[in-house]
Amino acid sequence: MKAREFKEIEGGVTSAKGYVSNAVSCGIKKPTATRLDLALVYSTEPATSAGVFTTNRVRAACVRVSSDHIRRGDVRAVIANSGNANACTGKVGLEDVRTECRIVAQELGLSPKEVAVCSTGVIGLPLPMMRIEPRIPELCHGLDVGKGHKVASAIITSDTREKEIAVSFRVGGKEVRIGSCCKGAGMISPNMATMICLVCTDAAVERAALRKLLRAGVEQSFNCITIDGDMSTNDTCLLLANGASGVKLAPGRPGWNTFCEALQYVLLEQARRVVRDGERVTKFVTVRVKGAPDRAEAKRVAEGVAKSSLVKSSWNGGDPNWGRIIHAVGYAGRRVREEKVDIDIAGLPACRAGVQADTPSDDLRARVQAPEFEVLINLHLGRAQYTVYTTDLSPEYVDFNRSEYAYWNQAKQDGLTR
Amino acid sequence: MKAREFKEIEGGVTSAKGYVSNAVSCGIKKPTATRLDLALVYSTEPATSAGVFTTNRVRAACVRVSSDHIRRGDVRAVIANSGNANACTGKVGLEDVRTECRIVAQELGLSPKEVAVCSTGVIGLPLPMMRIEPRIPELCHGLDVGKGHKVASAIITSDTREKEIAVSFRVGGKEVRIGSCCKGAGMISPNMATMICLVCTDAAVERAALRKLLRAGVEQSFNCITIDGDMSTNDTCLLLANGASGVKLAPGRPGWNTFCEALQYVLLEQARRVVRDGERVTKFVTVRVKGAPDRAEAKRVAEGVAKSSLVKSSWNGGDPNWGRIIHAVGYAGRRVREEKVDIDIAGLPACRAGVQADTPSDDLRARVQAPEFEVLINLHLGRAQYTVYTTDLSPEYVDFNRSEYAYWNQAKQDGLTR
Repeated sequence: MKAREFKEIEGGVTSAKGYVSNAVSCGIKKPTATRLDLALVYSTEPATSAGVFTTNRVRAACVRVSSDHIRRGDVRAVIANSGNANACTGKVGLEDVRTECRIVAQELGLSPKEVAVCSTGVIGLPLPMMRIEPRIPELCHGLDVGKGHKVASAIITSDTREKEIAVSFRVGGKEVRIGSCCKGAGMISPNMATMICLVCTDAAVERAALRKLLRAGVEQSFNCITIDGDMSTNDTCLLLANGASGVKLAPGRPGWNTFCEALQYVLLEQARRVVRDGERVTKFVTVRVKGAPDRAEAKRVAEGVAKSSLVKSSWNGGDPNWGRIIHAVGYAGRRVREEKVDIDIAGLPACRAGVQADTPSDDLRARVQAPEFEVLINLHLGRAQYTVYTTDLSPEYVDFNRSEYAYWNQAKQDGLTR
Repeated sequence: MKAREFKEIEGGVTSAKGYVSNAVSCGIKKPTATRLDLALVYSTEPATSAGVFTTNRVRAACVRVSSDHIRRGDVRAVIANSGNANACTGKVGLEDVRTECRIVAQELGLSPKEVAVCSTGVIGLPLPMMRIEPRIPELCHGLDVGKGHKVASAIITSDTREKEIAVSFRVGGKEVRIGSCCKGAGMISPNMATMICLVCTDAAVERAALRKLLRAGVEQSFNCITIDGDMSTNDTCLLLANGASGVKLAPGRPGWNTFCEALQYVLLEQARRVVRDGERVTKFVTVRVKGAPDRAEAKRVAEGVAKSSLVKSSWNGGDPNWGRIIHAVGYAGRRVREEKVDIDIAGLPACRAGVQADTPSDDLRARVQAPEFEVLINLHLGRAQYTVYTTDLSPEYVDFNRSEYAYWNQAKQDGLTR
C-alpha cells in the first residue's frame, strides 16, 4: 500500500479557502435553551455542489427543497438547524423552508435556489419559525472565517461530541483543502432522526464529476454504517467545491486521484465517528463479509448480522456468541451454505465450516471485552465482499429512546401542537 | 359474521383421541436441573402429517432430518427437547438426531422415518447425548393419555408459561378435536432460538390436503409475528391427523370448513400467545396495514414498523410517537406516498395525510399506556392489507440477552466444548 498523499490538519467545515460560517442560539427546542442550534455555511465564491439525500419515501421538507435546488443547479449557502427535523409537516413545512431560503438569499445577494437547508430533530412538529426567522439576518451578518467549530456544535443533537475533520494536499505547488463537519443520528441515534454531513473544498471541480464522486463516496462510507437499522427522513450529505485554492481538478488530471482518496478518507472517517458516537453505544464493531458469490449477497449478510438485535445484545454483554452470528447469516443470506461458513471474532477462529472452532471460549471472550473488534465472515462461495460498521445494542439505548414527551410538551406550550 | 362452529375446550396436545405422551427430566442444560426437558408425543394409530420448517439457510440437525422424514412419508411420533437447539453441530448433530429416531422407533415398533425430532436451546453445542440417550426407553414406556401438559412444560425455555389449546366440533354426530402445545422463541425469545408448535387432530385428512392447509395456516399465523426480527434455525410446526374420531374430512365435504376455521384459530391463538409471552415484553401491539397497492407492500410496511427498534422503544415508554412510525413506513415501503398516509393509534387519529392529526396528544398517550393496542396504517393506494403481531422492545430484553455464559460454562464441564 502506498503512502497517503494527503495529510490530516486541524480544522473543520470552513478550513478550505473561501468559506465563512456562523451559528446562533435560537432556542429551537425550548425558548430558554442557550446552546447553538442554527448555523450557516457560505462559499464566498460561486461553487459547484453535490448532494446525496435519504432514500426514505418519507422525506423532510428541507430534503425536498434542497434536493430540488441541487437538481436545478448549484447551492453555495447551507442553513442548518438542530432540534426539529421539519419532517411530516406538510405545506407549512415546505413554506418554512422556502422562507429560510428567501431570507438567506436576500441577505447574501443570492437567488433562493442557491441555498440548501438541513434540519435535524423531532419528526412531525412544525419549525418554531417565530424563533428562527428573526435571527437569520444576524446569522448572515456575522459570517466569518474561523467559526467552523460553531457550526459543528450547532448541528449536533444527541451526539456527545462535535465531528470535524480537514485534510490538505498539494497540486502543482498549490494547497488544496477539504473540510467537513457532521452529526450523528440518521439510522444511528434515532431520537433525532437525522444524519447531516457538510463537506467544503477549495478545489474547482466540474459539477458532473463532483456529483459522481460524492455518490460513490457515500456508498462506501455512510451507506455502510448502521446503529439501529432505522433510516432517517432527513439524511443529507452536501459537498461544495469553490475553486478558491486556484486548483482545478478533473478525472485523469494531476491531483485527481489524491482528491478522490482524500475525500473518501473524510467521508469514511466521519461515518466511523458517527458510529463510535452512536447513542448509548459501548462497542464499535466492523462486520466484514468475504467469499460471497456477489456483492449483493455480501451486503445482505453483513447488514443482517449488523442489524440483529440478538447479536448486538450479545456484543453488549461481551459474549463472543458465534451461534447467534451464524443464525443471522442464515436468515439474511439467500445463497449461504452453512457447512462452508467460517467466522473469526477479533482475529480468532470462532466457527469453521459451520461448526464450533477449536479456540478456547475464554480466549474469544477476552478479545470481545475490547471496545472495538472485527467480525470476519467468510462464506467461501466466491470473491465478493462488503463491510459494515456498527455497534452493540444496550439497555441504555432503549431507555434513552423510550419517550419524546419533553419535546411535545414544549411544542404544546409553543402553540405548535395540541 | 357467523358464529364459530367449534368450541374451545380444556386441554392440549393430546386432547384429540388416539394420542399419548410423556416427558422426563434429563438435565440437558445442567445435570442437576430437575425441570422436564425431553418429551414424546405419539399417535397410537397411523396418521397423516404435515410440517412447516424454518426458511433460515442455517438449519438445525433436527430440522434437516424431520423435514426429510415428512417429505418421504408421514411421522407419528415426535420427540422434542429444550435446552439445546442442536444447530451448527455438523455431522455429530445429524448422528445424534438419527440415534434418537432409531431408539424411539425400536421402542415403539416403528420405522425411524416415522419419528420427527424438535430441539430448542442454545446454538452451536452438541446435544448431551450421554444424558438423553439412556432416558428414551423410559420416555417411551411411560406414554399415556393425560400427560399433554407435561409435554407443554418440557418444551418451553424462556417462556413464562405453557401454551396449550384444544378445540372441539361435531360432524355428523361425531366429535372431532384439535389439540396443540407450543413454545415461544423463534424470532421471538432469541436466547433459545426456536419456535415449536405441535398440533394433533383425531380427524382423518389426506396428506396432500393436510399439508396445503398447514402451509396456508402458518402463513397467516406464525409468519405474521415478530418480536425481535430474528428468524430461528429451528422453527418447526407439525400437524398430525390420525382419524381416531372416526371422522374423515376432505375439501368440499361436510365439516371441512369448520375444521379449517378451527385449525386456523388454534394456530393464530398459539402465535398470539407466543408474542404475548415474548422475552421481557410489556406490550402486545397489532400493526395493521391497509390501503396498500398489493400484499407485498402491505407486508413490507407492517414488518418495517414492527421491527423498528425506535418504534418499539417508544412503545415501551408509552409514547404514541407517530413520527417514528411514519419514518419506518417510509423506509420499509417502496411505493408509499407520504401525503396519503393516515395512522391511527389505539383507535384515535394520530396522523392524517402525512401530518399530525388533531387528536390531543394526552388522549393518545392515555391509550398507549394499555398493555395491548392496535396501530392502523392506511396507505390509501389500493385495497391490499397485512397484519403483524408484535411487541415493544425493553431495556430488560437487551439485558436478558447479553450473555449465554452459563450455557457455555456448563458445556465445558460436560466436555462438549473447550
